[in-house]
Order: sequence, then C-alpha cells, then structure tokens
Amino acid sequence: MQETVVRILDRVNCPDDLKSLSISELYELSEEMRKLIIKKVNTTGGHFGPNLGMVEATVALHYVFNSPIDKFVFDVSHQCYPHKILTGRKEGFTNPDSYLKYTGYTAPEESEHDLFKVGHTSTSISLATGLAKGRDILGGDENIIAIIGDGSLTGGEALEGLNNAAVLNSNIIIIVNDNDMSIAENQGGICSLLTELRNNDGNVKDNFFKSLGFEYHYIADGHNLESLIETFSKVKDSKHPVLIHMHTTKGKGFEPAEINKEPFHWILPGTLDHLNEEPVPEEESYESITKNYILKKKNEGMPIVAMNAATPGVFGWNKEFRDKLGKNYIDVGIAEQQAVAMASGIAKRGGKPILGIMSSFVQRTYDQLSQDLALNNNPATLLIFWGGISGADATHLCTFDIPLISNIPNIVYLAPTCKEEYERMLDWSVNQDKYSVAIRVPMAISYSGKQDFTDYSVLNKFKLIEQGNKIAIIALGSFFEKGKSVKDLLSKEYGINATLINPCFISGIDEEMLENLKKDHSIVITLEDGELNGGFGEKITRFYGNSNMKVLNYGSLKEFTDRTPLSELNERYHLNPDLILKDIKTIL
Amino acid sequence: MQETVVRILDRVNCPDDLKSLSISELYELSEEMRKLIIKKVNTTGGHFGPNLGMVEATVALHYVFNSPIDKFVFDVSHQCYPHKILTGRKEGFTNPDSYLKYTGYTAPEESEHDLFKVGHTSTSISLATGLAKGRDILGGDENIIAIIGDGSLTGGEALEGLNNAAVLNSNIIIIVNDNDMSIAENQGGICSLLTELRNNDGNVKDNFFKSLGFEYHYIADGHNLESLIETFSKVKDSKHPVLIHMHTTKGKGFEPAEINKEPFHWILPGTLDHLNEEPVPEEESYESITKNYILKKKNEGMPIVAMNAATPGVFGWNKEFRDKLGKNYIDVGIAEQQAVAMASGIAKRGGKPILGIMSSFVQRTYDQLSQDLALNNNPATLLIFWGGISGADATHLCTFDIPLISNIPNIVYLAPTCKEEYERMLDWSVNQDKYSVAIRVPMAISYSGKQDFTDYSVLNKFKLIEQGNKIAIIALGSFFEKGKSVKDLLSKEYGINATLINPCFISGIDEEMLENLKKDHSIVITLEDGELNGGFGEKITRFYGNSNMKVLNYGSLKEFTDRTPLSELNERYHLNPDLILKDIKTIL
Repeated sequence: MQETVVRILDRVNCPDDLKSLSISELYELSEEMRKLIIKKVNTTGGHFGPNLGMVEATVALHYVFNSPIDKFVFDVSHQCYPHKILTGRKEGFTNPDSYLKYTGYTAPEESEHDLFKVGHTSTSISLATGLAKGRDILGGDENIIAIIGDGSLTGGEALEGLNNAAVLNSNIIIIVNDNDMSIAENQGGICSLLTELRNNDGNVKDNFFKSLGFEYHYIADGHNLESLIETFSKVKDSKHPVLIHMHTTKGKGFEPAEINKEPFHWILPGTLDHLNEEPVPEEESYESITKNYILKKKNEGMPIVAMNAATPGVFGWNKEFRDKLGKNYIDVGIAEQQAVAMASGIAKRGGKPILGIMSSFVQRTYDQLSQDLALNNNPATLLIFWGGISGADATHLCTFDIPLISNIPNIVYLAPTCKEEYERMLDWSVNQDKYSVAIRVPMAISYSGKQDFTDYSVLNKFKLIEQGNKIAIIALGSFFEKGKSVKDLLSKEYGINATLINPCFISGIDEEMLENLKKDHSIVITLEDGELNGGFGEKITRFYGNSNMKVLNYGSLKEFTDRTPLSELNERYHLNPDLILKDIKTIL
Repeated sequence: MQETVVRILDRVNCPDDLKSLSISELYELSEEMRKLIIKKVNTTGGHFGPNLGMVEATVALHYVFNSPIDKFVFDVSHQCYPHKILTGRKEGFTNPDSYLKYTGYTAPEESEHDLFKVGHTSTSISLATGLAKGRDILGGDENIIAIIGDGSLTGGEALEGLNNAAVLNSNIIIIVNDNDMSIAENQGGICSLLTELRNNDGNVKDNFFKSLGFEYHYIADGHNLESLIETFSKVKDSKHPVLIHMHTTKGKGFEPAEINKEPFHWILPGTLDHLNEEPVPEEESYESITKNYILKKKNEGMPIVAMNAATPGVFGWNKEFRDKLGKNYIDVGIAEQQAVAMASGIAKRGGKPILGIMSSFVQRTYDQLSQDLALNNNPATLLIFWGGISGADATHLCTFDIPLISNIPNIVYLAPTCKEEYERMLDWSVNQDKYSVAIRVPMAISYSGKQDFTDYSVLNKFKLIEQGNKIAIIALGSFFEKGKSVKDLLSKEYGINATLINPCFISGIDEEMLENLKKDHSIVITLEDGELNGGFGEKITRFYGNSNMKVLNYGSLKEFTDRTPLSELNERYHLNPDLILKDIKTIL
C-alpha cells in the first residue's frame, strides 16, 4: 500500500487547528484521515466501516464545536478513530510503530477529549443526559453531543435515554448516524422509520423523534462538509433537546466495504490484501456444529428459532445460514433484554428458541434471565459464546458470565469440554421442557473421541474421568485440558495419581461425589475460565468449609483488565500448571 | 363496609360465561368486581388504583377474546385482579377466608389463563412477541394481547419490544393502558406524547406508534364498555401489529384514589378505614435520615442530584421532598439502565448523584453498573433499599443484590449496621471522587450510640468489634445483630468468648484481619442477609481454602421463594442462633 500523504494533517494537532482551515482543506484532511484509517486498520485489524463513515462528520463536529469544553459522547466508540486523529493522537495512525498505542475505543486516560470508556452499545444518550444534568446543576453552558448509530438506537438503554433527553429542557444534541446498518442488517420498526425518513428527505407524516419532543434536523449527505457544518452551527448552543438525523455511508471511500457492509464492520489484519481470494473453507468449530444442528432440526420440522441480538457474526451465522433458516431465524436488534424475554415467550408457546449471545453482552440480561426466563422455567436454550479469560479490551471482557448466570435460581448452566458433550447437551436442552438452559460454548474445538450418552436431566452430576487419590482436580469446561495437564504434572513431579473430574454443570455441585472425595483426598483444586469471585469454585470451597479438605480455586480475579496479554494473566492468576503445582507444594 | 352483592358474578365462573351477558349486565358485573376489589385490597393490602382502572377493560377483553386460546400478557400484573376474578378465581375476592389464596400477580400455576409469572415492569410486549413468534412457527392463529401501562412504556425492555413487535408481520395487539401515571408522575417524552394524543382524541401530527409501524386506535374512555368492545372486536384476528391506546382513570370508582393517585397505587391493609385521620408523624428511619442529608447538602449548595427510577415511595421521597429539591431531583421513569448511566454522567461532570434503587430492581442494571459506571470509576452513590431475606413474592425477592453488585470490579459496596455508620458512609461516598459506591441500606433502624469516625477510603478494612478466640463471627450489615446473638449464645452455652467482626465492606475482604484470626481461632462464621451463592461469605471461605480454618456460611439458598414466611426461611437456612450453634457443635 502506498505511503500516505498528510499535508493538512501535519498542521492539525488539536481540534483548534481545524478552525482556520478552508472547506477544501477540510475535504483534503478528510481524505488523508480516511487513507490513514484504511492502512492502520488493515494492519492491526479493527472497526473499519463505522470509522470510514464518520470521517467528515467528525471533522465538522470538531470544526463547529469546542472540545473538550463542548463534550462528545461516542456510542460504543467503534467510530471514534477520526476523533482520535484530531485530538492529539494522530501518531497512532501515521506511525506504524504506534499503531497499538491507543485503544480502539474512547478512553479518558488517553485524552481529555474522551469522556467515557465505552464498548457496549446504546449508552451514549443516557451518559450524555448525565453530563447535561451535571452541567445544569453546576451552572455550565457547554454543548453536550451524543453520537449514536441507527443500530444502537434499537437498544433499550438508548430508548430510555431518548425518553429522558427529550424533556431535559436544556442543551443536548443527539446525532443519529444513520448508515442503514447495524453490524448486520438493522432491525425493527425504528429501522423502517429511518428508511422512510431517508426516502423523504426527513419529511414524513409521523416523525418518531418529533413525537418525543425533539427539534429534528435531517442531513441527507453526511459526507458533505458544507451541510454538516451548516446544521451543526445552527443547533450549537441551542437551549433545548435537538436531534440530528444524518445519513452516512458505512465503509465510505472504500468501495468493497460500501457494497458489502457486514464483513467490513470489523476486519482482521491483512483483510484488504486478500480481497479477491476465495474464502477459506470453514473448518469444524463449535459455530459450524451449532449451525448444522439448527439446520438439521429445522429440516426435520422442529419449531426451532435461532435468535440473536445483532451479532450473528459472533456465531458464524452468515447470510447464507440466515437465508436458509428463513422465518426460523430472528435478529432482534441490539436488544438483549428483548431477546431473552422473547425466547421465554417462544418456549412457553411450544417453540424451540436457541439464543446465541456473547458472554460480554449477556450482562445486559440479568433481570430478564431471572424474571422473564428462570422464574417461569421456560425451556429456552442460551448459547454463551466467547466466555473465558483473554487479552480483550476492558469493554469486552468475557469473564463475568459464570458469576452472573450461575447464581440465578432455576437456570441449568452447562460447560461442555468437547464436541461430543456439546452436541449431547444441545440436543438434550432443545428436547426437554423443564429447564431454562445455558451452555457455555468453548472457543477452541476439542474431541473426546467417545460418543456422549449422558442424561443431563440428572442435574449436577459431575463426571469422574479418572479415579486417583490425595488430590482431586475439578476442571470446568474450557479449562478441562488444563486440568489434565495439572494431573500429568502431578504424576511426573510428585508421583501423585490425582483424580480428574469434569463437572459439566456450572450451576450446581455434585454433593455426593464431593462427599466421597473426603475418603481418600486431602486437596481439591478447581479450575474455571472466568472470575473466581462468585464463580464455580467458591461453591465447592463452601461445601468443604466444615471439613478438613483443603481447596484451591483457580480462575481470574475481580478486575477490568485492558488488552493484557493472556500469558501475563496466566502468570498473574497462577493458571499455568507449574504455578499451580507450586501452590500445591506449599500445602502438601 | 357493607356486604358486596354479586348478582351477576354469581353466574360467571369462566370467561365464556361473559359472552351471553348484555351490556348492562356487563356494567353491573364491573361494579360488583370493583366493590370486591376495594374490599379485598383494603383487607389484605395490595395494588389498588391500577386494578380499579382496569375493571371494564378486562371485562371487555374477556368478552371479545377467547382466553386461554387467545393469550393475555399483563405487564407487571399489578392490574390483573379483575382478570383473576373472571378466570375461576373469584373466591379469592368474594370469600375473606380465601383472600390470600392467590398471589397479587399473574401465576401460571394458578390458572391456564395466566401465561407468565411477572412482577417487574415493561416485559409484556417482549414476552408477547415470543408467544406470537411461537404461534407463527407452530402454525397457530390465536390472538396475542399485551396489556401495558403508560408508565411501563418508559422501560427499555418495553421499547425494545415495541421495536420488534412493529415488524412481526402477524397478529399482535398491544393495549397501552394510559392512566397518565406511573407509580408517581409519568416521565419523559413518551409521557408528553401520550398527553398530546389524549388531548387530541388520538389525532396528532407526529404519532409515535404509527411512526414505528403500528395500526393505531384510540379509546377516549377506557371505562366505556361499548367503545372497548367495539375497538377490541375491530382488531381481533388482525394479521398485523396493532396498538390500542386506551385512556383510563387510575383508581376509577373510588374518589380519593382518583383524585390523589400516588398514595393509592398500593395500599396497606385498613387504609380506607383511616382516610380522614392525620398522617402519623414520620419516625426516624433510614429513609428520613437520607432525605434530611440530601436536603441539607442541597441547601449548603452542593450540586447534589437525588435520582430514582419511578419508585420514590420506596425511599419515602414524597411530593413534599421532591418539591423542595426542585431541579436537584430526577425521576427517570421506569428506566433503571438510564438511571445508572445518567448518574455516571452527572458524576463525571462534577455533580453528586445519589440514586435510590430497590434491591429487586437493581437487577435491571448489571451491565450499566459494570460498563457505564464501574469501568469509568465515576463517583456516583447508589443506595440499595430493601436488600434482605423476606417473605416477599417470588417476583420481588431482594436476596440477589450482593452476588450481583459485589462481583463487579471497582464498585465499593458497603453494609452499614447502624445509623451512625450509615451517615458516615453516605457522607464519605458523596464527598470522595475516586470510587463508584453502593450502600446497602438496612430496613430497620438501629443505633450504636457512638459517632463513627471511620475513614472508608481505606478499603476493605473490617471492624473488630470484640476480640475473643476460638470462633470468629463475621456478621454483615443487617445481620450484625444476629451475629451478636450468636456470640451471646456461644458464651452462655459453651463459655466461648467469640470474636465479633463488623465487615462494613461487602465487596472485598480484610485479608490482614482474616490472616490474624488464624492464630487463635479454628472456626469462622459468616452471616449475610442474602443469597450465599456468589455472595460475601464464600469469599471468606475461599481465603481460608488452603488453611485449617473451618468456615460456615449463613445466608439464603439459591431459590425463588414465594411468600414463604420469614420464620420458615430462618429455619430452612439455619439462620436462628440456636440452629447455628447446633452446626457449630458438630465441628467443635
């Protein structure tokens, strides 16, 4: 890829430097920024389409408003790269050595121009209402601007935010960046109304935003700096709630991304260098197994409904799969609460809902899991993807789902350790009608090589994989292999023949088996791929609280880690078998 | 109160019996039902205004539709008493001996006419979309009807539901029961748009519901059986999403409740017998202490903002208090997500938010607590009310907030044991700017008699109340008094001088103190007023996992109890000091 020229950007070190530029220079600056983003994201991976769509709008925002006095809140902040470039962090885009210096999200520790660390959607309006209320109580007069995508507008928190923002009676400016896409297609009545607004240049009989009380402005071309600047200038310092509906093109300026938006929402490093290559055939994975199972059941006539909340890509539910499912597929939009409640309703009516959801986003559904689903014992199946300790951003950690789900009564939370168990658990869950079930789908596939005939309706029955003595290792789900390694090392180093247990159930303990261990074991080790506090291991420890059994729990600590390498976390949490052995040695 | 005549109701044992009645008989029936509800609720306590407002509409619904084939989903089900009367459960209203036979909510175990056990708001539309989708997949053709109040419409789940219901492309009928009130005044843009619709007989320029894609009908008088029946009949069996906006009067037919709606939303037994008596002067309580603190700080010029999500009555935040606060008070509607995110924004801008929230409803905010608040370390103060084990309905249990909040990183969760500590903690929280803080406000006030000078910025420092040996009792928050009783009984029965510890912090443990206990203690007991699984005590037990310390944890089990008397729960969970002593005896 050719060297990027930054003739104008060279002169822009902070937002103030924009104010003296001419419109044609602003356009030139936008093109420079766009090229930098394309090159940088293709090198590091990251959010591609959303950022390309926001270049001109961000330039115009910083041209018109005065950050950091005026305050921008970017929803999800998948679209904040142009903002980062203009607020003192262009080095992260011009210098390949600094490509990883800044996070992919807004981050107050990086810049006073970033207000919040965010990564989950639909929060910007609510956060902005808080900034506005704080300003009003303290007697300030700055502009508060929330920038939110059309997809994010389908989330309950955003809609609660709109309802409150509309009656603030003071300055708040909400910019709906309507690129006619969520991550996949946008969903629901809000999608339709935005389409109608776009098709009619903002003039319709029933205007959703006006009905709520907003002053409404429409920008037909969100890449036209003149209209952007004109509209932003018009609403600047307004003393009442304003909503700007701005039509942009996701992936703007990179044709393949403009045409085929979904795969370019977020790209892997090097994606643009292999555009014309045939896609690599999908290898077997928990995603492909899940898809095959769902399609098979659909074809057998089961009233199955594959559901998700705007992230079908996380489960590999591509367009082909969705099309094959037809009415047996639903994407509810970025609306996890709706997804869980709807799954409960479908199950109540005799349908077979399978809801895919990423560990980090299941956090949106605690109350729905508890009240709408578990309290009603409706037999929905939830597949929790990506659960586990990782080097992810602080905003997308997947370590909290075990404490969250497993302490809610009535939900059976299962942890398969291999393909055979996963298939059996999935099939059991879909075919029973007594329990709400969640399954923690591991990331990497593994095989036991033996068909699983377990009857999972016998709840909380752990599997005794190898009977030994002295030490028992209870290794949950994706940490089962780690348990085997600890067992091997114990044998090698100390000649101890440890017992190995695959608990299968996260949400309950096998008291009979644990009681039996007391006979010839003095140490129990639990391993879980998630937060220890409130997690699985502590329940085992509590069981043994009145006995002489020593128990060591392994998992992650209660903390927000931020792009911390997994190797470092494994050290910190003593998750390497040699470190576990050291701990054991101190109590042997 | 005079005997209630049930001339028509005598002939109505199931919804089918309505179909042969004349309109005038239906009116008579409505009056009979209204009188029964007034009498029953005044005897047992319960939801008063919401049920009186739904009498005629419920009669009309059952007259037009065919339950249980057609399916009604009542939001919150605070308004389901008329439905219960008409669906085989009139005995619970006609016979005082059976007044407590049925729950105050819909309950599938009571009747096939009840689809879901619900008690949290804003869920009906989402649940109904699930029933509708299940019907469509299975090839059914019944009507699915969600009945939701205007207040509940301000909740994110309801709005996510509307967005999805609008594009279902098949039968779903949403009835918005607009009585112009939430529990307190309704809030936000949605409130304004409903007012505008009511003022214009349903005809406005920008119709919110039409904008989403619904066929919209307005019923100006939701107590007029002819219009109700006409409209319901018109939309019955429709093949697309319909929304009926129905104007009713909360408290209809009982004048004091029609005039003064808020105090009659839910009433205590005997309320109607003491209508003209002077209100009893408020005794000192955690509610009054909180109010006094907030008013004092406001008057001192602190930029304090008292916040809540539609339940000011839970904290005693009556109209007088709200009026005194003026712009320093916000009710965000039934929108707990918005409340937490907004609090984070206010704190970020330098304001001092104090958000009151009931333990059972904090369940709506897991993700906002984690992402919007804790990840950003913004110094908001959350007051968690009613947390603890109780004989509440399954829908309103308050036992889950400790596992929920205390396993989220960065939040400091405090448990005061007396007025002095509560005041100190509250003042500390409001005046610091490093931590997001939650305080678990006990129900019953108690006093230590000693001013508290603790510096709570020294995190996770437990208080050693009485140094003893052999056994240490760690008694959290509202269970501190129970800890004292156990100590006294240990002394009396076994002559053991136990150590007594008030941990103050729920969200972390005092490792130094716990380590010190190892010297001359062999048993540690933890007591917490909430669920053990994922709770406070397990963290103590895990700390001692590699030692010889025996640990017994006391709290509630992971289960949905339903109006189970507290005495029974205390037995079941071994929460009585004598039962705890028995357990100790087995390991002494």
